[in-house]
Amino acid sequence: MKVVSLLLVGFYLLPSCKAEEGLNFPSYDGKDRVISLNEKNYKQILKKYDLLCLFYHEPVSSDKVSQRQFQMKEIVLELAAQVLEHKDIGFAMVDSKKEAKLAKKLGFDEEGSLYILKGDRTIEFDGELAADVLVEFLLDLIEDPVEIINSKLEVQAFERIDDYIKLIGFFKSEDSEHYKAFEEAAEHFQPYIKFFATFDKGVAKKLTLKMNEVDFYEPFMDEPIPIPDKPYTEEELVEFVKEHQRPTLRRLRPEDMFETWEDDLNGIHIVAFAEKSDPDGFEFLEILKQVARDNTNNPELSIVWIDPDDFPMLISYWEKTFKIDLFKPQIGVVNVTDADSIWMDIPDDDDLPTAEELEDWVEDVLSGKINTEDDDNDGEDDDDDDDDDDDDDNSEEDDDDDDEDDDDSDDEDD
Amino acid sequence: MKVVSLLLVGFYLLPSCKAEEGLNFPSYDGKDRVISLNEKNYKQILKKYDLLCLFYHEPVSSDKVSQRQFQMKEIVLELAAQVLEHKDIGFAMVDSKKEAKLAKKLGFDEEGSLYILKGDRTIEFDGELAADVLVEFLLDLIEDPVEIINSKLEVQAFERIDDYIKLIGFFKSEDSEHYKAFEEAAEHFQPYIKFFATFDKGVAKKLTLKMNEVDFYEPFMDEPIPIPDKPYTEEELVEFVKEHQRPTLRRLRPEDMFETWEDDLNGIHIVAFAEKSDPDGFEFLEILKQVARDNTNNPELSIVWIDPDDFPMLISYWEKTFKIDLFKPQIGVVNVTDADSIWMDIPDDDDLPTAEELEDWVEDVLSGKINTEDDDNDGEDDDDDDDDDDDDDNSEEDDDDDDEDDDDSDDEDD
Repeated sequence: MKVVSLLLVGFYLLPSCKAEEGLNFPSYDGKDRVISLNEKNYKQILKKYDLLCLFYHEPVSSDKVSQRQFQMKEIVLELAAQVLEHKDIGFAMVDSKKEAKLAKKLGFDEEGSLYILKGDRTIEFDGELAADVLVEFLLDLIEDPVEIINSKLEVQAFERIDDYIKLIGFFKSEDSEHYKAFEEAAEHFQPYIKFFATFDKGVAKKLTLKMNEVDFYEPFMDEPIPIPDKPYTEEELVEFVKEHQRPTLRRLRPEDMFETWEDDLNGIHIVAFAEKSDPDGFEFLEILKQVARDNTNNPELSIVWIDPDDFPMLISYWEKTFKIDLFKPQIGVVNVTDADSIWMDIPDDDDLPTAEELEDWVEDVLSGKINTEDDDNDGEDDDDDDDDDDDDDNSEEDDDDDDEDDDDSDDEDD
Repeated sequence: MKVVSLLLVGFYLLPSCKAEEGLNFPSYDGKDRVISLNEKNYKQILKKYDLLCLFYHEPVSSDKVSQRQFQMKEIVLELAAQVLEHKDIGFAMVDSKKEAKLAKKLGFDEEGSLYILKGDRTIEFDGELAADVLVEFLLDLIEDPVEIINSKLEVQAFERIDDYIKLIGFFKSEDSEHYKAFEEAAEHFQPYIKFFATFDKGVAKKLTLKMNEVDFYEPFMDEPIPIPDKPYTEEELVEFVKEHQRPTLRRLRPEDMFETWEDDLNGIHIVAFAEKSDPDGFEFLEILKQVARDNTNNPELSIVWIDPDDFPMLISYWEKTFKIDLFKPQIGVVNVTDADSIWMDIPDDDDLPTAEELEDWVEDVLSGKINTEDDDNDGEDDDDDDDDDDDDDNSEEDDDDDDEDDDDSDDEDD
């Protein structure tokens, strides 16, 4: 790890000339904390930490670019290690060539991956490799796998979480064997899927949960799916979640963005950009939710919602790659192998498509009528497929009220 | 800027071995885009860009640590410049010694500051100097200063924004002189304070706004303050906002965290940590909002709410500096000159203080009864002031559990 120490003192930057204390971002202190794991030390290291974060990498080649990229990864890990030092989280590197045997023993197969060992589980981190994203991910991993809901206000908090898959169960007590199975199941999915439980009759009643019952909530759906045949074993719960793991509408998140992107359907993603904190973006997202609710049983449909606010560094890249303006809502189809794309024509962000129009468009995508190859020949005009959709019932713009078309999507008021 | 090019190729890191396209974080391409501003070139540069981002710095000294820190700032700026290249945003450095005359002309006074010139306005960026935070800030600055609300769904979006100061006005049209004054006023506070307008009677009715009236919303308050004596000039609006700019409860945000922190009251901040996405944190935040609403007319009170999720890299620093556990809600008093602090004793996060108990505690802080110096002598026990509050109406826990004996350490289970 020497290279790292040479490179950086002060990775995170303090504005100078501040007399105040209390907001000091950590600078890398130059101490090497990331260990090189090998067959000799690995058992001892594994025992030493509750959580061990392992970067499994190919041998570092001698060219400068690869070396720099490797160094940058080291810095991210060193800084995370420094910041999490008092939390008992260890960090190590595993060289895929030098430690091929060890890697096999640990079940590592994808070079460039970050694996986290927690007890006898291996969790892959497949998100943005930035120190803040990684630190937050690891802190989530050392929390309890199940969050207990005790009060009405906490039910509200539970209900507000709509962009994660979540489960909630009602059990007699922490000692219940069914709760224990639920807790074990939760560990399989932590921190990607949120598990909640209550031991309180009032809370259970409010959520219409029977004893030992678990409800599964797909993101952005108001109504849960009760898991059948209670009580469940750990394996039954795990299997159910795995079967229902791909939602109709999902948010792209820094902590698992690459995993989401890899989970394409037939090589494409339907991608919607909407900035939730912006009124137009909020409106578009509500319409998207409506489409998702209407099509929740279609296994062929999984829309990836991206809030540009979550990825400021990617906005310009997306605008250039997809040739779109991200100051307004967009929906399109992206081919994941070459990032070729085609986008719905939304001429005016004050006149967004209705849920029906969106559904027609989605259908055309799923049937192949709209696809990313179509526009490649004629080059200039890529709105031929959806032009007609937009014009018929959207262009009556008399500004005193244009909300007759959003009647089906104003049910959310939190 | 040569140093920078030497340092980094690939600041943002791509996990290797991905066959997919569409999520490529930018690497610094080594091209120098940040200009050194001087008396000769500044007029031309100013003319060239809609937005000019200027880092005003003291001369770089020869010691290694200062040089590295300076290089890191350069990299943040270079990467932001690269990413925003097609948005017509310029980046430059101003050396406070070499360009003292120019700095005076531009009105720069605080070395280490980042100033943004937009038309004839100068905006200071006083947030976390990280590329993503800066890029998002600058993108917000090139949007329209006023967001138009057209529909019921957009009113919902407006209502959901509760952690910013926001204003909304009802005007006849975009051509109205009163709207123009409002727009000019908005530019003074963009992007820190959000300005909305509507030209729609239905929307105005829903928000009980009369023609040419502007309502001012403090963060986390349901009820707005109507600005008196409509219609207003730009100056009247600006003055009103400045007078009401410090809210009773405010969220610490990466984009203006240092400005917020500098705005202390008598050298202290009342700081509350609550993770909004966590049920306990959500509950605590609701209680805080209640306290804020009850005390909105007290100019001596301004609580800083920190959501640890917004600052993963600071969590460990805060836990060590303040000697608290951030897995649960906390409220305390922090002395901003030395970060000395004292925290309310919340023995159990399933049994949070009530709004009344919090108000009593806040009163004790404001009267000086609770202060950061008190615990410095006896060292060990800092819960003497609030112990009695916790016991009287909160301890009916019929759950037969064990939280009697471990009053300040039981909820941490990592």
